[in-house]
Amino acid sequence: MVQGAKSVQELLDSDFQVTLLVATRAFLNSATLSGNAEIITVTNNVLADLSEYQSNDAALAVARTKPNDAFAVEPDEFALVLDEIRDPGNLGTIIRTADWYGIRKIIASPETADLYNPKVISATMGSFIRTRLYYTELEGYLAGVQSPVLGAYLDGSNVHQHNFGKGGLLLIGNESRGISAALEKYVTQKITIPRYGEAESLNAAIATGIICDNIRRNG
Amino acid sequence: MVQGAKSVQELLDSDFQVTLLVATRAFLNSATLSGNAEIITVTNNVLADLSEYQSNDAALAVARTKPNDAFAVEPDEFALVLDEIRDPGNLGTIIRTADWYGIRKIIASPETADLYNPKVISATMGSFIRTRLYYTELEGYLAGVQSPVLGAYLDGSNVHQHNFGKGGLLLIGNESRGISAALEKYVTQKITIPRYGEAESLNAAIATGIICDNIRRNG
Repeated sequence: MVQGAKSVQELLDSDFQVTLLVATRAFLNSATLSGNAEIITVTNNVLADLSEYQSNDAALAVARTKPNDAFAVEPDEFALVLDEIRDPGNLGTIIRTADWYGIRKIIASPETADLYNPKVISATMGSFIRTRLYYTELEGYLAGVQSPVLGAYLDGSNVHQHNFGKGGLLLIGNESRGISAALEKYVTQKITIPRYGEAESLNAAIATGIICDNIRRNG
Repeated sequence: MVQGAKSVQELLDSDFQVTLLVATRAFLNSATLSGNAEIITVTNNVLADLSEYQSNDAALAVARTKPNDAFAVEPDEFALVLDEIRDPGNLGTIIRTADWYGIRKIIASPETADLYNPKVISATMGSFIRTRLYYTELEGYLAGVQSPVLGAYLDGSNVHQHNFGKGGLLLIGNESRGISAALEKYVTQKITIPRYGEAESLNAAIATGIICDNIRRNG
């Protein structure tokens, strides 16, 4: 389920199959419709009552989820690998941040939050439409890849100086325990975000944003 | 209310006045106690039942809130100014991130989430102990400061090249509408985080982290 004029229009323009569209007359007059969704016209007030997590006075759409299909990551592109990101807000924010930095492919462990959780969809602010997420066991996945695997540790190469190259997999660890011990052997480049104060760690989504900014800056 | 061994010990070591400490015998044996808090010894299971938002098997403490006191920002230091950060998770994450980057002073509009909201405290991961937060009307506050005021806009100076100087106030806008129109005239340096993909914007806490990383990197 997607809410808000901008995200609903992006969904209608995407290859997601929209099955239900609940919208105001104003939205329907200006929107580009396609496919054969059931359409229900409602007032602003009804929409506001239906909406969770965010204010919405234009439209709400329900679409079919996509199958969990694998994809290839090319040698000259960056992708994210999420090792048990459990918080829906963190997952959605990571997807939105990846989309800002032009990263369209995300591989996630089965314990990672569900992409179709409404809190995840809401936090992506529509970016889930432009990114692909594939859930799989990470040990088997990482054992089979040729790309460099970047992981944030306390004793790695300073991200301000690190040469990230043209592509690779950025492995993001769980909110509490970081990167699983079992996955450390697949990390080919340990990197570190320099600390200037006293917090023990950064939130997983914040660390993702800072590393992506440094990847693009140095690239 | 603070939960978890590390944060509770940091609270006990701080100038916060702890009034109640609920802890396991193991925690009490290893902790450094001071002041005259009421102490209740409990089992792990009782603590787990008491705890919200995070797992906790060591301790929980209740402390008095601090008065909303103003402070000076020196010319050679950076501080954050929060223009209506409403989401408690965002506020807590911003405080944690500021602490990572050695930023100890935060000024917030009255509409910003309450520092003592349990979700805020939890998301700071203890960093609220090391930072000072002062709630005040931002128009009056910014009208009276001499420091540079940095604000993120779409048409500002690229943060990858911007010379941030030795100090200033980083103004962070509301999650939905960005920086208030009424505050724009106080912004002396408009800055921009370069975009490489298609997301329309970044989450407010993510943007804060990326700008702080660039401030420290260029400083």
